[in-house]
Order: sequence, then structure tokens, then C-alpha cells
Amino acid sequence: MSAQAAEMRNVFSGDAGDQALAEALFDALREATGDGVGITREAYSERESLALDLVEAKARELGFATERDAGANLVVTLPGREPELPFLACGSHLDSVPQGGNFDGAAGVIAGLAIIARFKEEGFVPRRTIKVYGLRGEESSRFGRAYMGSSALFGALSAADLAVRDHASGRTLAECMASVGVDIARVKKGEPLLDPATIAAWIELHIEQGPVLVARDLPVGIVTGIRGNVRHREVECLGEAGHSGAVPRWLRRDAVFATAELVTHLDRHWRTLLERGRDVVVTAGVLGTDPQEHAIARIPGTVRFSFEVRSQSRETLEAFYDLFVSECALIGEERGVAFRVDRRLESAPAVMDAGWIARLKAAARDLGLPDEDIPSGAGHDAAVFANAGIPSAMIFVRNQNGSHNPDEAMAIDDFLAGIAVMRDAIREAVR
Amino acid sequence: MSAQAAEMRNVFSGDAGDQALAEALFDALREATGDGVGITREAYSERESLALDLVEAKARELGFATERDAGANLVVTLPGREPELPFLACGSHLDSVPQGGNFDGAAGVIAGLAIIARFKEEGFVPRRTIKVYGLRGEESSRFGRAYMGSSALFGALSAADLAVRDHASGRTLAECMASVGVDIARVKKGEPLLDPATIAAWIELHIEQGPVLVARDLPVGIVTGIRGNVRHREVECLGEAGHSGAVPRWLRRDAVFATAELVTHLDRHWRTLLERGRDVVVTAGVLGTDPQEHAIARIPGTVRFSFEVRSQSRETLEAFYDLFVSECALIGEERGVAFRVDRRLESAPAVMDAGWIARLKAAARDLGLPDEDIPSGAGHDAAVFANAGIPSAMIFVRNQNGSHNPDEAMAIDDFLAGIAVMRDAIREAVR
Repeated sequence: MSAQAAEMRNVFSGDAGDQALAEALFDALREATGDGVGITREAYSERESLALDLVEAKARELGFATERDAGANLVVTLPGREPELPFLACGSHLDSVPQGGNFDGAAGVIAGLAIIARFKEEGFVPRRTIKVYGLRGEESSRFGRAYMGSSALFGALSAADLAVRDHASGRTLAECMASVGVDIARVKKGEPLLDPATIAAWIELHIEQGPVLVARDLPVGIVTGIRGNVRHREVECLGEAGHSGAVPRWLRRDAVFATAELVTHLDRHWRTLLERGRDVVVTAGVLGTDPQEHAIARIPGTVRFSFEVRSQSRETLEAFYDLFVSECALIGEERGVAFRVDRRLESAPAVMDAGWIARLKAAARDLGLPDEDIPSGAGHDAAVFANAGIPSAMIFVRNQNGSHNPDEAMAIDDFLAGIAVMRDAIREAVR
Repeated sequence: MSAQAAEMRNVFSGDAGDQALAEALFDALREATGDGVGITREAYSERESLALDLVEAKARELGFATERDAGANLVVTLPGREPELPFLACGSHLDSVPQGGNFDGAAGVIAGLAIIARFKEEGFVPRRTIKVYGLRGEESSRFGRAYMGSSALFGALSAADLAVRDHASGRTLAECMASVGVDIARVKKGEPLLDPATIAAWIELHIEQGPVLVARDLPVGIVTGIRGNVRHREVECLGEAGHSGAVPRWLRRDAVFATAELVTHLDRHWRTLLERGRDVVVTAGVLGTDPQEHAIARIPGTVRFSFEVRSQSRETLEAFYDLFVSECALIGEERGVAFRVDRRLESAPAVMDAGWIARLKAAARDLGLPDEDIPSGAGHDAAVFANAGIPSAMIFVRNQNGSHNPDEAMAIDDFLAGIAVMRDAIREAVR
């Protein structure tokens, strides 16, 4: 352990109250929703409700008023001095993927509770009311739709979303939402359950789902934005099959060489954009020749692959997409192949609030912690709040082994550091 | 049609017996082994056996003695005046790639049968016995190994070759060979099933599998040499899977980007070697991410692909293979992936017999046909016979659209021209 790390440890391991609260709640959640392999508390299920109940019981034990809102989410309130002002919202989600980890989502709810618990203990009454949310239905694993809980709050679930059936039970999303107490009539009408104008900000702590904080040896990072994406589920490169030995290079229309050149050019453009300071990740996650016709001694006539570009910037997404289209045309012409794309799918990026980013960074610096930027590659409820016009911010906490698996590994000291940054920034904002 | 072509057409369309025999057999084969898209008669399969049965029935109908040799190949015999002399062998293979064409292989067997049928009809008894072979297992599409039928004849199948499993059925080459009647015990011992000293020559007619005769407007060509190859059935690129949005480029170990760069570099080396006058073709016919774990939003952790380089020069083969190995190491190091190769398979280039080339060219000239040289880009059983020390020769027949696809298009007149050249050269040699 470095001297700096040792010092940080001393600072945050001193937060004995936070640590006791966090460990008690994580243990209770693990015990109640463990599945033998990992953790399972699927969206709008009884196990998700159990998680809300556990956190609610702890909040009441700490003396807070709690309620379930019209979306059946848990809300824990610390009243402010001027309750007519827009309130500050924080928290995260309490559902998980099947056989997932205990920290993805729950960490943000527990952080919010720990923050208001300390304020209450210190006798600090904020100017604005603070509400801690334990949201439902963030994960897409059950219904193929992510951010259902936060989307419902802003009237953004479509009839098509609500009609999707869970494979296991055969029940629709609407049925499952109703069964846990959601005011489904209002959700079906697309009526907002919450007026964005009543919310001053949304602050969410979450484990990082990628390896950056681990690789850079940072306990926490301040999220600058949430990447949106543009995708094609399938791009088809159509060339011409033929005998691999007998067709000279100048007469070939080889789909593998063409696709390889395309991917290699996209990689170079990616590198160039990074060098120019743009935020981009590019992936061709599924790629292959046609199993119905490919052979070792046959020039591959067809390759199919998926295309995905993600960025925090809508402009960068479009610029990269243009490069993709242009490369397909150029390589197609040069190599006598054609690239055909299916329907373009997209998801908008979300920008985090500059004022909150500055406030979180200042808090980190004052605590002797690094104040490094980190983009969020994965989506979060914060993107829904931000795109509803609410100033939003996120703190990422270092986490080994990614998420959506039982091997998530957030160290308690890193979590305490994240709570400390978030608490100081909120205290500063609602003083 | 040019005046010369019209004259040629008159010459060979007069061979009504050849034409009737050829059309009857091609039609029967197409009907029996068509798969709805093309033709499928895979090595050591029931459909391959069906093709042998059809040709054998026709040979018997024509009054020939037939047998299956220890390699389960079809042998049709026209006895010579001096049966103790080494015999003249001709023919080709009867298997095909999946969804291939009807002429690749079968044309050479039918040509051999047409030649001895005419000799018999004319009452011409050759000095040497002539044996027409309908070989099995020439195509590598099923077991990754080509020329299995001819290699088995000369004791050249290794234990490793025999242990390879067909992906579809899970059965080994040895099991499949045994199931169609090969004397697998002798093959396993590496015992030759045929003594090269008993064979005076191997003459094989085959469709050209490339576009050269079409481009040069030649009905037939006399083959000077056969490209050998070096192959891996499967190269595995091992990286690391991860969330496509959350892992930045510098932390990625993306198997698709690494493989694309490898293929693109091999393409550049190929172009450079061609510009320096070397004979090379390079193919990655089978390539794909892992269907068990790939997803659009997941960094691909594994890509598997086949590698093949072909050349008439052993030195060029080795030089290109060294480039391949070196690129795997460099790209692997740069991108944090590992390339693992399976067993290296190779097939030696082969030189055709000068005496037979001269005899075939003389026959072509006497028939008013061009006597042009052509190298064979594809491998053929003739290479195995040549490398067993047997004087070997090949005639190529013009063919549109390449081979290993359902669109092979050999004109019957070109086929009759090829048969005429081969028949006259053989008659001259065994008079």
C-alpha cells in the first residue's frame, strides 16, 4: 500500500458509522437475495421488493420517514429548511441481473442513506429536502428494456415496453409492475409520476462496470457523461465465393479480406479520434463467415458482423458513423464487395451537469483524493434524469471484475471514499 | 462464335457417344447428390458412395469389369495386351464440397470412362492395361485434409490425419473411411495400397477452377505444375471479453480487431510478393467469433479462423508462413491477445511430367486446338501421384464461375475437346 493509499484508508476507515451501516445492509441484502451463485433480485419481482423492504426498515430504524412513490420505488426523506424548494434526489436501483453481484445498484442507495444518516446525526438540516431513492427496474435482463423505474417516473414507458413478457413467468411488464404496487393506470397513460421541475438535481453513486479505475489505481472517479450509441445488429459484406487456390488476387471479391480492412480502418479512425481528444469506443462483437457455405479452401463470399460505436458526444457518434459509411463504400468499390446494413439503432448520450462535476471534484480534492474524470460506458438511471432536464451527476467507485456477475469486488474503503466525496458535495450544495 | 471456334465445335460435337455418356452421367449425379442449392457429396459419406455406385453401374452397362480397391475407390479396367506391364491410370475424384458444383472431380472420372468406352467400341486393345479411377476424399472441406483418397493409396495418411473429427457428425476420418469399406488397418499402418512401380502414368482431366482459360478464350490448357499449400484448420485468437461500453481502447484485448489487423497485414504481404513476381494466394475461408459467448454489446474475447497459403514454390510457401508466424507474435504482443494454431498441414507443390506434357500438346495441335501451358492454382490428386514418383499430367477444361460453388459452368463442347486431347495422347502412348 502506498503512503497516500494508507493515509486515505485512515481517513475513510474512520467513518465507522458509514462502514457499519454499509456492511449491515450489504450483508442483509446478500443473505435475503443470494441465489447460491450470485445475487438475484429481478426487476418488479418479489425479491426486488424484499430488497426495498430491507433498506426501508433500516431507514425507519434510523428515524427517517419513508414511502413508496407511484412507481413503487422506495423514497427516504430528510426534510429541508425550505421544503417548498425543488428537492435534491439521490440513490440508485435495487434490482439486479440474475446471478449478478451485490453492489451494482445497491451501493448507490446505501450511499444515499449513509449520507442523510450522518446529516441527521450531526444535526445538519439542509436548505433543500433530500430524498434518497431505491429505484426498481433498472436492469434489462428480465424485459429487454433498461431504466424502467426511472423512465416510468417521467412518463417514458411505451405501450410496447409495457406489453413485453418475462420469458420465465409469461407475465407482461405492466402486470409485474402492477403486482408490486405501481400506479399502472398513470404509467399506461404516459403520465409523469414526478415533475422534473420539482427536482433540483440527481446524484448517483455506482460501481464502475469497466476496468479503468482499477487500471489507473483510483478509488473513485467523477463521471462526465454517459455514452450513447449507434448500432447495426447486422452488417452483411457480400463478395463472391470461389476456389481458394485458383482465383488470383486481382479477381477476388473476398468478404473476409474486405471486412478485415474495414475493421482495421475503423480501428485507425478510432485511434485518431482518441488522439484528438474525442470520446469513442467501437465494437464488432459478433462477426463470422456463413457456416452454411464457408470452407477452408473456399474464398469467403459472405461475412456478417455487428457494428457499435459509443460516445458521450452526439457529434462524435455521427462523425464516426459517417466514417463507417464512407469506408464501406470505398472498400466495397475497391474490392468488388457490397456492405449492406440493417435498421440503424441508437441511444442518446447524456451529459452530466458541469456545476455538479465541479462540486464533486472540489470535494474530492479537499478530502485528499484524486479528482479524475471518467466517462460512463454503460447506461444508468442518471441518463434518464439528465435527459428529463434535471442536473445530474455520478460518482464511480473502483470495482474489480466488472459487473453483472457474482465476482464484483468493491473494497469497503473505496466505497467509504465515494460516500465522503458525495456527502461533502451535497453538504456544500444544500448548506 | 469465331470461325476457329465454329470449326472446333464441328469437330467435337461429332463425338456423339462421348456427349451422350457425359450428359447421362452428369444428369444422374446431379439428381442423386443435389442438395437444393448445389451438389453435396462429402468425403467418405454415403452421398459420395452413391456417386461411385452410379458411375460403376454405367461402366458395367458398358461391359467393363469394375472393383473397389482397398481404399474403397472405384476402379474400372480396360485390359491391355501385356497386362504384366505397369498400367496407365486416369480419372479423378467423385466427392465434392458442400453446396459445390457437379463438374469438379466428376468430369475427370467421366472423361476416363468415355476414353476407354470409345477404345472398346473401336476394338482398340491398348498395350498396357488402362484403369479409370473414381477416387474418394479429395476435398478438404470435411476433415481439413485434401487428397485423402490418393494419399491412402500411397500410405501417406498419418495417425493425426486419421484422428481428425468431422464437426457435424463428431466421427473421425478413420471411422468414416472404415464405414465405406476402406481397409483401415492397412491405412493405419501406413502401408501403401498400391505400388507406384506398377503404375506407368497418371493422367487427370479437371475443370479449371480459376478464370484464366475463360479470360484467354481457350477451351483447354495443359498443366505444367500444381500449387502446394500450408494450412491451419483453426487459428484461435484469444483476447478478453468485457462490456463494450465500459472498456476503453487502451485496456481492450479485442480478438476481432487483432484478427482483422492480422488478415490485413497478410493481404499487404501478399500484394508485395506478387509485385516481386512470386506465385502466392492467401485465404481465411472460415472465420468467426464464438457463438457461445458473443454479443453485440460485448467485446469479443475469441475469434477462430482458418489459414491457407498456396504457391508453386516451396520456398515461397515457407517465406509466407514465416511472415504469418511473425505477424501473429507482433500483433499478439501489441494487442494483448494470443494466437494459437492447431496442427500445421501441408501439401507439396508438384511438377508435371515433361514427356506427357509434350504428348498432350502434340495431340491438341493435331486436333487444331491451342496447346497453351497453364499452372494449376488448385491442388489435385495428380500432385500426390507425381510426388509418389509416377509420371503425371493434367488437362484443364475451361469453366465459368470457378468451382466449389453451384454455378460451375463447363460447356459440353469444351469437355469433348478435353476428352479428345486426352484420348489421342493416351492412344499414342499405349498403341
